[in-house]
Amino acid sequence: MRVHVQTFADDPEFAITPAQWHDAAAGAGEPPDDVSFGVTPADWDAARATADILVSHTAVLRRLGTLDAPRLRAVFVNATGVDGLAPFGWLPPGAMLLNNRGTHGQKAGEYIAMAVLMLAARLPALLAAQRAGQWRPVFSAPLAGRSATIVGTGDLGSAGARALRALGVAATGVRTVAAPHPDFADVVAVADLDAVLARTDFLVLACPLTAATKNLLDRRRLALLPAGAGVVNLGRGALLDGDALCDALDSGKVSGAVLDVFDPEPLPPGHRMWRTENLVITPHVSCDDPGSYNARSLRILFANLRALREGRPPPNRVDPDRGY
Amino acid sequence: MRVHVQTFADDPEFAITPAQWHDAAAGAGEPPDDVSFGVTPADWDAARATADILVSHTAVLRRLGTLDAPRLRAVFVNATGVDGLAPFGWLPPGAMLLNNRGTHGQKAGEYIAMAVLMLAARLPALLAAQRAGQWRPVFSAPLAGRSATIVGTGDLGSAGARALRALGVAATGVRTVAAPHPDFADVVAVADLDAVLARTDFLVLACPLTAATKNLLDRRRLALLPAGAGVVNLGRGALLDGDALCDALDSGKVSGAVLDVFDPEPLPPGHRMWRTENLVITPHVSCDDPGSYNARSLRILFANLRALREGRPPPNRVDPDRGY
Repeated sequence: MRVHVQTFADDPEFAITPAQWHDAAAGAGEPPDDVSFGVTPADWDAARATADILVSHTAVLRRLGTLDAPRLRAVFVNATGVDGLAPFGWLPPGAMLLNNRGTHGQKAGEYIAMAVLMLAARLPALLAAQRAGQWRPVFSAPLAGRSATIVGTGDLGSAGARALRALGVAATGVRTVAAPHPDFADVVAVADLDAVLARTDFLVLACPLTAATKNLLDRRRLALLPAGAGVVNLGRGALLDGDALCDALDSGKVSGAVLDVFDPEPLPPGHRMWRTENLVITPHVSCDDPGSYNARSLRILFANLRALREGRPPPNRVDPDRGY
Repeated sequence: MRVHVQTFADDPEFAITPAQWHDAAAGAGEPPDDVSFGVTPADWDAARATADILVSHTAVLRRLGTLDAPRLRAVFVNATGVDGLAPFGWLPPGAMLLNNRGTHGQKAGEYIAMAVLMLAARLPALLAAQRAGQWRPVFSAPLAGRSATIVGTGDLGSAGARALRALGVAATGVRTVAAPHPDFADVVAVADLDAVLARTDFLVLACPLTAATKNLLDRRRLALLPAGAGVVNLGRGALLDGDALCDALDSGKVSGAVLDVFDPEPLPPGHRMWRTENLVITPHVSCDDPGSYNARSLRILFANLRALREGRPPPNRVDPDRGY
């Protein structure tokens, strides 16, 4: 198969290098595919007539627009959330979209554990005291034995559930349809989310952004949480109503929030969230390890290329109707 | 045995109430001891001639001074670190000091996990960006597989080692003399600490403050850490050289620190640490859960009273020469 890897020279973050490619191919025991690397729009123009597989990034694909590439069987995007690429009419007929789902789990699990531990220990209030230069003790109960609900039982959410279980927290998972999952104490359908919120000390959003999940944590659902609950978001910013969350933090209804994703990103200067108390902001870094990101992604890509070559369904195929 | 519980009305934090006492005694299947509760110096004066056991707090004991109590067999202090009570000449001849070692493990383990996760994720730098209202991504490697050294393999340190193990970190323990410990990958003697520091990504201080551990993490030892290491202290403030740590944070040699203990406490207004970048301050709250503190302490006290009654060595006896 003829593979083309397209990045743009002015957007080098997480760009896959030829050396990384060949290392990963050797590690995966892959036959040497016919691969080319492009860094300009002209490079893509030269490659598109013969490419079977395009490997690229969200921002690059958005700039390329509708792909005129008659042989293209698959586009692999070096990201898991593909909300920025929807709707998917830019895909050539007969080409599928593959994401790098599986790349982010290790760091996501650690971020979820960290965020929930911080919220249980009332770190947001302690950080506010520190900013004020004031010694203001706030005591708290241990995390172990408290309750957490994780929306999304995929790579991110299940890694979070495993990390929380190791810390004595049995997490409830929320997904499209209820189904047992080994990492969760129980799993409920998103249609039953409201009933779960009242017994949720810590709510973690770790699901894809789709038409069905946009604004999932709205003002009404925030009100269903118990007083003093904590909120974590590492899915996408638009999963929650940011103004309603800030109001809930201002009133103390929500005791703290740890957010890695925002709408829009970067969070604009002067945005209300920058100055909301008891809110911890991390700038979309929760799940990305530059030292291993491309190696993990390429391992996943090669598993998908093998499936394509052997006529099996590639495990990372995105369903355009579901949006993930 | 005649037990007297002494607090002072103006220092009510963690004061043991008669209801808590009787609940815990019933829960422990203890015979009803002859117990009295005092809240003024006069109450202690009335009790001291007949008391076999005094149950109290560090601040209260410091105010009582040398104890003139001829029958006293043991003083139980509702704290683990007894550095604030040394030297121990105030104890009547023949009386032993008992601490509440074992009360703090659950929260300590969670605090150590939280602090090390925060340092691995470069939270201190991200919090500084947030304070500045600036979107400044800092990426980091996962915690799993990195190295941690915990000084102190007692209640706090071993709970931290278990939590870190659950997160994929094999911790090295440091104690007075090397000896295998099930929660640690390996344990070295404090005499060999220097050799361990060079391979320590995260250094956690969780040991008692004694003449031998005062200033343990001094300027020379800080320099032995690898560039970008993280430091956590939940033992006592005087275990480390605060000025040297601030210098190491200012230079970037240490990438972040999470401190729960200070010298002195409360950390004075305007102290350099309040404004040192990449330093997270929590005001001596890491290990104390008001909801369970006294119940945990009393469970430990009753186990010690049972040992005294049965002629066994009480497990929480403090060795005045060691200071813990």
